[in-house]
Amino acid sequence: MTMPVIPDRTRAAVLHAALDLRVEDVPVVRPAPGEVLVAVEAVGVCGSDVHYFADGRNGRNVLRAPMVLGHEAAGVVVELGDDVDGPAVGTRVAVEPAVGCGTCPTCRSGSYHLCPTGTCLGSPPTHGAMSGYRTVPARAVHPLPDGLDTETAALVEPLAVAVHAVRRAGVETGHRVLVTGAGPIGVLVAQVARTAGAQDVVVTDVYDARLDRAAALGATATVNTTRDDLPVAAFDRLLECSAVPAALWQGMHALAPAARATVVGQAPPAADGLPLALMQRWEIDLNASFRSAHAFPTAVGLAASGRVDLAGVLTGRFALDQAPAALRAPGADPHHLKVVVRPGD
Amino acid sequence: MTMPVIPDRTRAAVLHAALDLRVEDVPVVRPAPGEVLVAVEAVGVCGSDVHYFADGRNGRNVLRAPMVLGHEAAGVVVELGDDVDGPAVGTRVAVEPAVGCGTCPTCRSGSYHLCPTGTCLGSPPTHGAMSGYRTVPARAVHPLPDGLDTETAALVEPLAVAVHAVRRAGVETGHRVLVTGAGPIGVLVAQVARTAGAQDVVVTDVYDARLDRAAALGATATVNTTRDDLPVAAFDRLLECSAVPAALWQGMHALAPAARATVVGQAPPAADGLPLALMQRWEIDLNASFRSAHAFPTAVGLAASGRVDLAGVLTGRFALDQAPAALRAPGADPHHLKVVVRPGD
Amino acid sequence: MTMPVIPDRTRAAVLHAALDLRVEDVPVVRPAPGEVLVAVEAVGVCGSDVHYFADGRNGRNVLRAPMVLGHEAAGVVVELGDDVDGPAVGTRVAVEPAVGCGTCPTCRSGSYHLCPTGTCLGSPPTHGAMSGYRTVPARAVHPLPDGLDTETAALVEPLAVAVHAVRRAGVETGHRVLVTGAGPIGVLVAQVARTAGAQDVVVTDVYDARLDRAAALGATATVNTTRDDLPVAAFDRLLECSAVPAALWQGMHALAPAARATVVGQAPPAADGLPLALMQRWEIDLNASFRSAHAFPTAVGLAASGRVDLAGVLTGRFALDQAPAALRAPGADPHHLKVVVRPGD
Amino acid sequence: MTMPVIPDRTRAAVLHAALDLRVEDVPVVRPAPGEVLVAVEAVGVCGSDVHYFADGRNGRNVLRAPMVLGHEAAGVVVELGDDVDGPAVGTRVAVEPAVGCGTCPTCRSGSYHLCPTGTCLGSPPTHGAMSGYRTVPARAVHPLPDGLDTETAALVEPLAVAVHAVRRAGVETGHRVLVTGAGPIGVLVAQVARTAGAQDVVVTDVYDARLDRAAALGATATVNTTRDDLPVAAFDRLLECSAVPAALWQGMHALAPAARATVVGQAPPAADGLPLALMQRWEIDLNASFRSAHAFPTAVGLAASGRVDLAGVLTGRFALDQAPAALRAPGADPHHLKVVVRPGD
Repeated sequence: MTMPVIPDRTRAAVLHAALDLRVEDVPVVRPAPGEVLVAVEAVGVCGSDVHYFADGRNGRNVLRAPMVLGHEAAGVVVELGDDVDGPAVGTRVAVEPAVGCGTCPTCRSGSYHLCPTGTCLGSPPTHGAMSGYRTVPARAVHPLPDGLDTETAALVEPLAVAVHAVRRAGVETGHRVLVTGAGPIGVLVAQVARTAGAQDVVVTDVYDARLDRAAALGATATVNTTRDDLPVAAFDRLLECSAVPAALWQGMHALAPAARATVVGQAPPAADGLPLALMQRWEIDLNASFRSAHAFPTAVGLAASGRVDLAGVLTGRFALDQAPAALRAPGADPHHLKVVVRPGD
Repeated sequence: MTMPVIPDRTRAAVLHAALDLRVEDVPVVRPAPGEVLVAVEAVGVCGSDVHYFADGRNGRNVLRAPMVLGHEAAGVVVELGDDVDGPAVGTRVAVEPAVGCGTCPTCRSGSYHLCPTGTCLGSPPTHGAMSGYRTVPARAVHPLPDGLDTETAALVEPLAVAVHAVRRAGVETGHRVLVTGAGPIGVLVAQVARTAGAQDVVVTDVYDARLDRAAALGATATVNTTRDDLPVAAFDRLLECSAVPAALWQGMHALAPAARATVVGQAPPAADGLPLALMQRWEIDLNASFRSAHAFPTAVGLAASGRVDLAGVLTGRFALDQAPAALRAPGADPHHLKVVVRPGD
Repeated sequence: MTMPVIPDRTRAAVLHAALDLRVEDVPVVRPAPGEVLVAVEAVGVCGSDVHYFADGRNGRNVLRAPMVLGHEAAGVVVELGDDVDGPAVGTRVAVEPAVGCGTCPTCRSGSYHLCPTGTCLGSPPTHGAMSGYRTVPARAVHPLPDGLDTETAALVEPLAVAVHAVRRAGVETGHRVLVTGAGPIGVLVAQVARTAGAQDVVVTDVYDARLDRAAALGATATVNTTRDDLPVAAFDRLLECSAVPAALWQGMHALAPAARATVVGQAPPAADGLPLALMQRWEIDLNASFRSAHAFPTAVGLAASGRVDLAGVLTGRFALDQAPAALRAPGADPHHLKVVVRPGD
Repeated sequence: MTMPVIPDRTRAAVLHAALDLRVEDVPVVRPAPGEVLVAVEAVGVCGSDVHYFADGRNGRNVLRAPMVLGHEAAGVVVELGDDVDGPAVGTRVAVEPAVGCGTCPTCRSGSYHLCPTGTCLGSPPTHGAMSGYRTVPARAVHPLPDGLDTETAALVEPLAVAVHAVRRAGVETGHRVLVTGAGPIGVLVAQVARTAGAQDVVVTDVYDARLDRAAALGATATVNTTRDDLPVAAFDRLLECSAVPAALWQGMHALAPAARATVVGQAPPAADGLPLALMQRWEIDLNASFRSAHAFPTAVGLAASGRVDLAGVLTGRFALDQAPAALRAPGADPHHLKVVVRPGD
């Protein structure tokens, strides 16, 4: 194999301020010890990216300096830093955007996604991957099998989020699962819940078009909550993917005794109206999932085997120069579930 | 042993309406098949009893007809119903007030305390135990060993609540535990958490006198939250025993990554201000405990062995005729932790 | 609906001694309070039935008096005992053969399948269901949806065993699962493990024909252990379905650190050669599953939705008069996975 | 504070072959990046050390070159390697002997004690700590509070083993716990089980003197199995600390339904006589514990608070020059539980 030629400079989508996303020339950073350099082929656009683009912030994370966007990346390993023994140059990989410091008690306990000092690609002030090249820790890259193309593999990151959410929810064989919110994460969560043994996966939303797509992508039933009520004591697990607290409270009222509700969608700092007496009377648990941990290998396997349909979730692709259009796409067209930007083209 | 003579009528503390508690003559009901008759010696006064007495209701449970109060009872078995083979007449027992229907899926799964059709002594419309005699299911009575007197055993019920709460919290050896609220349940929860291996048990309240008593009864440290802030990322488990949502939110901010908060105190129907983004960023779980299940044998053991100090929690005793005074005692004198009414005197 | 006419007598397959199975006239017992009467349509033949037929015993359970065989039954409810409010006469049901006493601490904790005094259909001295009619507790019958015919539903019982085994194994999304033994239980376990999220399900056996069938029914790969070695550190869960301890030890050597092995096949009283140092060095857990608990509704759902292929496991059917031939079938023809006897014909 | 003067050479107890333990001059190795240098004050003698001394091997670990013995160490930090920011020079610490590579999937999942490539102090070919000075990873040292002297702190390592074992056993409040074997680990396990909420802790052995000491150190009852049988269905958890499989089988027969047995004592490669049918009929789980993980902080806390009595377990101390005598002490005098060698004297 010929070694790839690594240029000194590359193109990147740099967010300078809200609504000011520029595709610019940037230097290619070479891998430090423990890192690898990835030639990025595709980067998914996440709701958090849209928040940074639209508002210059996402929750408490505020853009304070120009930053390359993007944390859902896949590409090809083109260089290994010192002390790195794999994967080999030429390996196609999905990139895990946050892997923790590796040495604090939280990391050592296995919860590297909760590392207090950890960084995440595309979360200020850490540059993201919407760029021709990006260095990442060697432990952050996950090889792709033949059955999974690199573009689709940009969606491995949100799929890993869904895998982690389903684990946090503790979905077991035979469970009746409710998913509130039929956006990209809701649709992936529904599919993963099904592969985890869920007997029924009911998806709710307020738009029929989104519900139709959820039904096509794995929901066993759908409910438009603007029209229909949820049944009571009907579900063992709830995965909240709409980022709307009212949907969470509504869903919790549909849970059976000893059930569990898991918040996957981005949570607000304070939520009013928690049905605490309901939680107590029926011992309904509430937890939340944050990014993912130890989920990329499973996500790669689910995607490569076809048990989760990622291609059906991918509704648009844009060249890197069109990155601003990509960031506007989900808001502009409600038919979009997930779009990718392709720096490699 | 001579068999006890069971009278036709006995005295009971009957709540007719808010603040209208009368000690009256009532018939002695004899045990049906599967039941035993208990000569009640002592009945603890719980916060829920005080609510019924003061307001004629407790949360969504409303007094609609005269009802005997009381669900924290201990006494002596004096008669067995048909098909009941124990415990023998003469056995001293603590009474578990709610044991479920025994046949629904929730009961069959082991969660009899969550039975949708279950009843509880002293919860409308089910008569309580503040009476000379009370029939209960045979599976609801738990024999007392020699080292545990019957009066103190009236506190086995709140101790079982604490045991169940600590199990729901998942307290493990080495945990740093925060208990918000130094009332009777908070003090018992602190003691049980310590026996479950907690390294530190920090109790919070807004009254120094209550904190001093918590310190004397097992807290390793105390914090008056009107004066001092809680440290951050400092606790693995929170048991909320104050019934004040603000204490819950405050406590949750003191939890470490991957910690758990458990609501033990009576929860309001809706609570504003849930720190949901905090829960998500650090994957802090929130659950609640309801009454107890499978906890009476453990509670009896903890009390009989002296590992939990029940006598120190018992601060007052009243004859049955003084039941109204007993119901007023906790409110009238903040030094009271737990008082008992003694129908047997 | 016209009520079914229930005859006074019916036909049953009665085992008098090893190899002495007679189809005889027996009285129809009517349901006691809490019971229902089922007109049996199909009864699967289990390995334990074959043991009773061949040897007059199964492990420590010894036939001491003539007994109706069979515990894998499905049929139609034809009469309700007093105090029974469902399912309605005419409902097609699968029958759970062992439901515990319902009142002992083990039952109350949720583990009714471990009830020390419980009985099981077709386990001496309790008569089985290979009979035109059989009374069972109302809580033992599980209604069948339209998509699941009654004959196939006789296999719900072994499917519930597989569901329970997979739960005991704790199979999670992404797990690599090894199943040793490609008999009827191994094949069902492999299918259920896949629905529970297993990434790979590798089935081992010593016969290629059985492995071919396992591959057709859900295994992602197979290994003939007479020819090929298992990889090391390659599996997260092992489900032992061959009843051969050597297969268990061999499989345990193929497990990754912190993995778990679960014994599903009938275990011998004492097994020599446990690799205890291996278990300790890698903290590999060993447990076993016994019958099933709370698994019938899930099994019905898996079968009715087609996620588990029961029809492919059913390889023979016999009229009741041919019951002796049915008991000989699995031994006589290695191509048989599971045969049923049809008392209703 | 004046910085300590670190000599070029120190004394160490070097095992050259079975029974050939020499106290010799060795160079002081200075800390690499990520490491600290500890001036060792006390090193406990473990059963595995005695095996190396007596046989030149311990299980499959074979001495192939001269090696410093000892893995139960405490001392004072005297130098920090590059990139190490604590604990400060002068801090008294207990040393965790095995912390894993930190980067493999097993370490990243939190199970660093199972790291396939990890090393352990005093396990061939890695030199141990029975030496004036020893470098260790910074993450391997655990500061000691004032209430815990450095000599006693040499026993923190076996106490951490006991903490880990009790966690693997899943001891909960109210459990009835059986501990087989009243050696040093059995006595520490019994104490930790009690602090974890065990209602009863029954210790078995074949020597009355050892049982008397166990009773003095926390067992609630003892059984000499040469004289008395164990009760049946009487325990929820078994912790096997005798390293004798027969004690494990015997103990398993004393367990209740759904109980768990945990092997703590060193396990043989193959054990004959596993009661597998018993495990299956009652769904009794079997696991094992290996060293410890995440247990040192808890162990330090239990020792410093006096909840576990380490001083009572420490029955002898030897100067470094007497190391051979220390290695012979446990075998020579059955009254010994645990002896330490003091390199600092």
